[in-house]
Amino acid sequence: MKTGPEDPLTGSTGSVSPSLPVITLLTDFGTADYFVGAVKGAILSVNPLAVIADITHEIRPQDVAAGAFTLLAVYKTFPARTVHVAVVDPGVGSARRPIIVSANDQYFVGPDNGIFTYIYDREPSHQTFHVTSDRYFRPSPSTTFHGRDIFAPVAAALSKGVAVEDFGVEIDDEVRLPSLENPLRIIHIDRFGNCVTNITRDRLGAENSIVINGRTISEFRKFYGERDSGALFAIWGSAGFLEISVNGGSAAKELSAKRGDEVVVRQD
Amino acid sequence: MKTGPEDPLTGSTGSVSPSLPVITLLTDFGTADYFVGAVKGAILSVNPLAVIADITHEIRPQDVAAGAFTLLAVYKTFPARTVHVAVVDPGVGSARRPIIVSANDQYFVGPDNGIFTYIYDREPSHQTFHVTSDRYFRPSPSTTFHGRDIFAPVAAALSKGVAVEDFGVEIDDEVRLPSLENPLRIIHIDRFGNCVTNITRDRLGAENSIVINGRTISEFRKFYGERDSGALFAIWGSAGFLEISVNGGSAAKELSAKRGDEVVVRQD
Amino acid sequence: MKTGPEDPLTGSTGSVSPSLPVITLLTDFGTADYFVGAVKGAILSVNPLAVIADITHEIRPQDVAAGAFTLLAVYKTFPARTVHVAVVDPGVGSARRPIIVSANDQYFVGPDNGIFTYIYDREPSHQTFHVTSDRYFRPSPSTTFHGRDIFAPVAAALSKGVAVEDFGVEIDDEVRLPSLENPLRIIHIDRFGNCVTNITRDRLGAENSIVINGRTISEFRKFYGERDSGALFAIWGSAGFLEISVNGGSAAKELSAKRGDEVVVRQD
Repeated sequence: MKTGPEDPLTGSTGSVSPSLPVITLLTDFGTADYFVGAVKGAILSVNPLAVIADITHEIRPQDVAAGAFTLLAVYKTFPARTVHVAVVDPGVGSARRPIIVSANDQYFVGPDNGIFTYIYDREPSHQTFHVTSDRYFRPSPSTTFHGRDIFAPVAAALSKGVAVEDFGVEIDDEVRLPSLENPLRIIHIDRFGNCVTNITRDRLGAENSIVINGRTISEFRKFYGERDSGALFAIWGSAGFLEISVNGGSAAKELSAKRGDEVVVRQD
Repeated sequence: MKTGPEDPLTGSTGSVSPSLPVITLLTDFGTADYFVGAVKGAILSVNPLAVIADITHEIRPQDVAAGAFTLLAVYKTFPARTVHVAVVDPGVGSARRPIIVSANDQYFVGPDNGIFTYIYDREPSHQTFHVTSDRYFRPSPSTTFHGRDIFAPVAAALSKGVAVEDFGVEIDDEVRLPSLENPLRIIHIDRFGNCVTNITRDRLGAENSIVINGRTISEFRKFYGERDSGALFAIWGSAGFLEISVNGGSAAKELSAKRGDEVVVRQD
Repeated sequence: MKTGPEDPLTGSTGSVSPSLPVITLLTDFGTADYFVGAVKGAILSVNPLAVIADITHEIRPQDVAAGAFTLLAVYKTFPARTVHVAVVDPGVGSARRPIIVSANDQYFVGPDNGIFTYIYDREPSHQTFHVTSDRYFRPSPSTTFHGRDIFAPVAAALSKGVAVEDFGVEIDDEVRLPSLENPLRIIHIDRFGNCVTNITRDRLGAENSIVINGRTISEFRKFYGERDSGALFAIWGSAGFLEISVNGGSAAKELSAKRGDEVVVRQD
């Protein structure tokens, strides 16, 4: 028996642990249409052993920055060799490039529209490849659904062990979104109404307060239910950023906050 | 070692690729209740190696035609031997028949209420079987949840290699929905507000315009972002049908269109 | 080749069927954020062979009782050795205990806040373990996301065959919700508007009617579409409880009913 990326189930004798290749999906397709099913079918047709893990399909339509943030928050929880497929793709069918990013011993497959910006920032030794060969595409790919016809089969081929160099040529001029680091702002609002800022631990001292939309938040907590004061408080969130929360309610509503709103760190 | 449908993981020596059997789910169950989990549990209890792929659970309650369209749009992306379970089933518990359709080297399991109509049309050599044996049902099946008690275990048994003839007898009087071909109309509106018509490539010439609800669409595009004129345009969608779209907005809203609305092809 | 819980794919020669370990997820995380993806990644990083089945992520935020009901309705459909992860966890980060329940030849992993109450009731011979060892946690677990940092890796370790005793010590003072048995009430309203009561078969005679919010339901049916009278009717639902329904509409709307509303069984 061989043990290798194309034959993952038979590597169980000997010291190598067996594993199934993981492919994650992150899209703005919603879950009511046939889009997500079509992507899964296209993957399984190429690699019937792929383990498909949905991250989310509810990125706001065409909101590339939201997709980029969500991917940033989640990619490191997945094992080595995971292939992340991210399709928020307003430019589908145009000249925007399909790309593969190799970083963190994982792969990222999607359009070159900035959706992998925060991966580039966190993984300085990443490599990016422009997918120029159509060898792994579905036959006669459409101009409207590259998720199914290009990104899914490319990801599935990667998950079977096809070398990244086989898909195209390395590039270094990837499209990038504005930096996640500056200016200080709200970068995400989650389902619970928590306001995720782009403040990381190295940027905040013990003597600081936070000001958003004229409201000052000076209480810091270790966990959500620490007290029940009814006041807004700051907390280190699970994605590594400072979040503003309120017990049993929505901080976003309380602050009339939306993504992009300015956050000020005040010296007390 | 044997290589066969009941032993998919050990077929990796020799020339046959290993694979796990794929079972897709398409329902109107929503995802907030226990229904989808129960179907998955019932499948995995029979075949713990089944790979379950959700197509959607957000078909509008009891909207058999919407389920039929979604299945049509997606089934060919899945590999051979996939078992598709489609449960939009207003007649659950009544005398309507549970059926298995064998077509395109795949299986389709669900109620005989027309949900497989468009598969019958696309796959003229299909065979349909009325499931008359309760041998593969869960014990004491309920009258209200055949998705869990009948369709799931039947699909799981099929995925393990039980022959379709073992479930019941072939029939040729399947229930059918009205044809998808005529009259020309909107057959689906997707999450982006694109209006999917039932016009296929063979029915449209280069000199045609489209009229919907009094509005004429005469612009045709190859991909969504081709221009940014703000006008409605027509485009060949990924399901093989002509769609009406608008950049950065909802064509359905713009046209006040709903499923079933008439579409006229006008000779320019 | 060995055959054992840590090596499930190679047990295919001989008489033992191969199987992949199943881990189910039931949370209030919603599906729009990165939370569910992070839990899946954390599981697959520990056990890349785990089969992850979503039950639902749409429990109303922090509604422990709704999570408990959904788990009750679904756990028995899953195979032996399934690990159920249930995270509706308003007390995350506080002193509330992480626990593992061993019952029905399955495991249940989550916070000790009552979410497993109905499992305790149905499975009197269950054992509960307080997870005191951090050996299987992710490194440096956060105080805000135990789903990812504690419950997911613990579940994955269990699914690989780690003995439940290795995680901590047995306890018998689990936190419990009020009983599901009394008082008679509506315990769940599903997506179709069916009102699920806590009435079981042993508590209802043939001569009984049901009264909810002043409305009397005296029609009983075997399946939903039995007649089309337009009237409210009672039916034995698929979770084993009496439900109130109406054809083609929402019984909850018709009754202005919400969870917790009193249900009276009247002797006719």
